[in-house]
Amino acid sequence: MIRAHQVSLASAADPRGLLTAVEFPKDLPFSPVRVFIVTDSPPGTERGGHAHRECHQFVLCPRGSVAIEIDDDEGIRNLVLSTPDVGVYIPPLVWAKQTYITAESSLVVLANLPYDANDYVDNRDEAAALRSVKRARRT
Amino acid sequence: MIRAHQVSLASAADPRGLLTAVEFPKDLPFSPVRVFIVTDSPPGTERGGHAHRECHQFVLCPRGSVAIEIDDDEGIRNLVLSTPDVGVYIPPLVWAKQTYITAESSLVVLANLPYDANDYVDNRDEAAALRSVKRARRT
Repeated sequence: MIRAHQVSLASAADPRGLLTAVEFPKDLPFSPVRVFIVTDSPPGTERGGHAHRECHQFVLCPRGSVAIEIDDDEGIRNLVLSTPDVGVYIPPLVWAKQTYITAESSLVVLANLPYDANDYVDNRDEAAALRSVKRARRT
Repeated sequence: MIRAHQVSLASAADPRGLLTAVEFPKDLPFSPVRVFIVTDSPPGTERGGHAHRECHQFVLCPRGSVAIEIDDDEGIRNLVLSTPDVGVYIPPLVWAKQTYITAESSLVVLANLPYDANDYVDNRDEAAALRSVKRARRT
């Protein structure tokens, strides 16, 4: 089964703030070569709305609240990221769309491949078909 | 000369927000295996105040404003991070301390090594001495 899932991270809180850490490949099955940050999205903004053919991603929300619609082998569901110490791992071929809920929400995305326009699959049915092919090859 | 420096990142602004990206090793001379995020630090909070023996770090401020005191071969100076698309590269043996200026400031740190308590050098004079040794070995 190819599916996204939430990952709880180690964190340390003291009067100086909250430090949340993730290590690769200890916590996630890839190592990042690209990091991007999304800021200044007005509430209600939708971003994403695609799967990746090869790229693994881990999504964190340091501040604010972002809903992630996931469409994968588990079905269609919504996860909400609203704390720095819980992220969402999105493996290749899982379709996802983000909706920025509160003003001043930000998103940090860690990816194991450089940007490549050919890696995007916008259509969720095509992503599902590609997952079927991948599952069949595994068996 | 062993010194920290600011790095401007590619970014794309549109009505959906600002996307800022960094790629490794294209933009920086290392690849991250550890990412940590600092949030919820009251204004005036100081963190860091050390160098690392081996660890390279790249520091980003997705939101708010954080001053970084740098002590390296260029001398002692303050850099202020207050926009997502400019970060600070801190090579090994450069001493740095962060001061969180505004409420709701956050910091994202990308590092090329797992956490290791033995990698820290708290004393800035010791860090300077270790830089001298390293420079001497290079020549």
